[in-house]
Amino acid sequence: MKLLDGKSTSHEIYQKLIPRIQYLYTEHNIIPNLSVIIVGDKPESLSYVKMKHKKCQEIGIDSNICHLDENNSTNDIIKQIQKLNKDPEVNAILVQLPLPKHLDTQKIIASIHPDKDVDGFHAYNMGLLTINQNPNLVPCTPKGCMYLLKKYSINLKGKNIVIIGKSNIVGLPLSLMLMHENATVTVCHIDTKDIKQHTRNADILVSACGVPELIKSDWIKEGVDIIDIGINFVNDIESKNGRKLVGDVDFNSVKDKVNYITPVPGGVGPMTIAMLLQQTVDSIFLNICKDM
Amino acid sequence: MKLLDGKSTSHEIYQKLIPRIQYLYTEHNIIPNLSVIIVGDKPESLSYVKMKHKKCQEIGIDSNICHLDENNSTNDIIKQIQKLNKDPEVNAILVQLPLPKHLDTQKIIASIHPDKDVDGFHAYNMGLLTINQNPNLVPCTPKGCMYLLKKYSINLKGKNIVIIGKSNIVGLPLSLMLMHENATVTVCHIDTKDIKQHTRNADILVSACGVPELIKSDWIKEGVDIIDIGINFVNDIESKNGRKLVGDVDFNSVKDKVNYITPVPGGVGPMTIAMLLQQTVDSIFLNICKDM
Repeated sequence: MKLLDGKSTSHEIYQKLIPRIQYLYTEHNIIPNLSVIIVGDKPESLSYVKMKHKKCQEIGIDSNICHLDENNSTNDIIKQIQKLNKDPEVNAILVQLPLPKHLDTQKIIASIHPDKDVDGFHAYNMGLLTINQNPNLVPCTPKGCMYLLKKYSINLKGKNIVIIGKSNIVGLPLSLMLMHENATVTVCHIDTKDIKQHTRNADILVSACGVPELIKSDWIKEGVDIIDIGINFVNDIESKNGRKLVGDVDFNSVKDKVNYITPVPGGVGPMTIAMLLQQTVDSIFLNICKDM
Repeated sequence: MKLLDGKSTSHEIYQKLIPRIQYLYTEHNIIPNLSVIIVGDKPESLSYVKMKHKKCQEIGIDSNICHLDENNSTNDIIKQIQKLNKDPEVNAILVQLPLPKHLDTQKIIASIHPDKDVDGFHAYNMGLLTINQNPNLVPCTPKGCMYLLKKYSINLKGKNIVIIGKSNIVGLPLSLMLMHENATVTVCHIDTKDIKQHTRNADILVSACGVPELIKSDWIKEGVDIIDIGINFVNDIESKNGRKLVGDVDFNSVKDKVNYITPVPGGVGPMTIAMLLQQTVDSIFLNICKDM
């Protein structure tokens, strides 16, 4: 068993970003700006936004948090986004999901200018990914998975890859990225019958279903590579705050059977934020090139 | 063995379109217009364009063929598209593919206004399909497959569906449509190892790989439903013109083992044109509703 180390990989990414951010400042007088919209006070969302903000500050990205009251309407939030779309100092806009239920998430996402849609959730960016036409902004979690697979030289061409979960932000865009790398991709989900029949056949297994420690040793074949995207908090009396973070994979159950595996925490999680900040910086360089 | 009859189904679709087209004329003074751009003189492309034109005329759609010389540049063609984009009489624009090799197909497709992109190939429309946000214009061949599956009440939820081929215009968008219907989808292609291991496990098998009569009886399990999207011309000394049309499936080899199957010809082929004309008409009704 070998670890796909998202923590150290993300650290390397930040180290590569810092001189590029410095270059933007000294040569172009640009400080990258990521504007994050958060609506309401969901503790997990607040915690994610805080993590992103902290990382931005560490590497020299200007992070502007726009914290809106839960009572705001869909149109209120769209108006806020339109301001950010027009603001030349704002390079990247992110709406922290999930939004409160009364809001129209898709309408809100659709109002972000595609060039500033750093999460890659806008239909236009998603379409460029689908047809594999040099998409600049793609969903960050799948991009982080692809980065890890490439970094550890895991060959994808012709491999049987099974993804559990077909969300618009993880499973589905990841399936497209893997198909573009010529993997044979199967997407499983809650309605899949006999899921083990699929997972046991996987050369690479990716789970993004959000069921704590679902995947055990009898789900997989010997030598599989596993990407665990699950972020599940479960009760744990031995932890300080009474709960601990686990993935979708029962690490102890599978560890003697797998080749590569992402730990949780320290696997895909840190890669998501690293890809977000990398896309923020990349998009500025692309715009500079466009103007040349 | 039962046939998924695309010929009679497409006929039914036209019969439903005719009164809607008449309504547009009598109530809104609109004659639907589909403008087709064809570049060069590839006989197959000319023949497809002719078929579409004839069908338009039959049901009352104004079809305007813009036949351009192969010497035109990418920019020449984009200029032509921009004219059509601006023309309020033109409701739908289609560029006949494949284009001659010196042209930038993606740049040309990207220049079609998404509201007139009746083939559904523009990144924005493809993205709406990917994230399942009420796409109005989607690729016509996969839409035709979905229509047949629905018409014959073939349940998709939880079914193992194997698609052979991952093109942007057929395999890939069809995989998205089927995932949105909660099927478990596997996409195979030229790099897939041991393809029969996948196809033998399929409840529904879709082939869009363009290899004449590739799929034989030993590729499938008893009772499978098959959608054959292949359009392959092979030599045939018994035919008048020395060749005949066959699908990707060896019909005679599989016919005693399958449940439903699309014949070739008369299966998916007629559905593609029917969906094209249906989308042309639908898009006008949607625009009328928008203006209300």
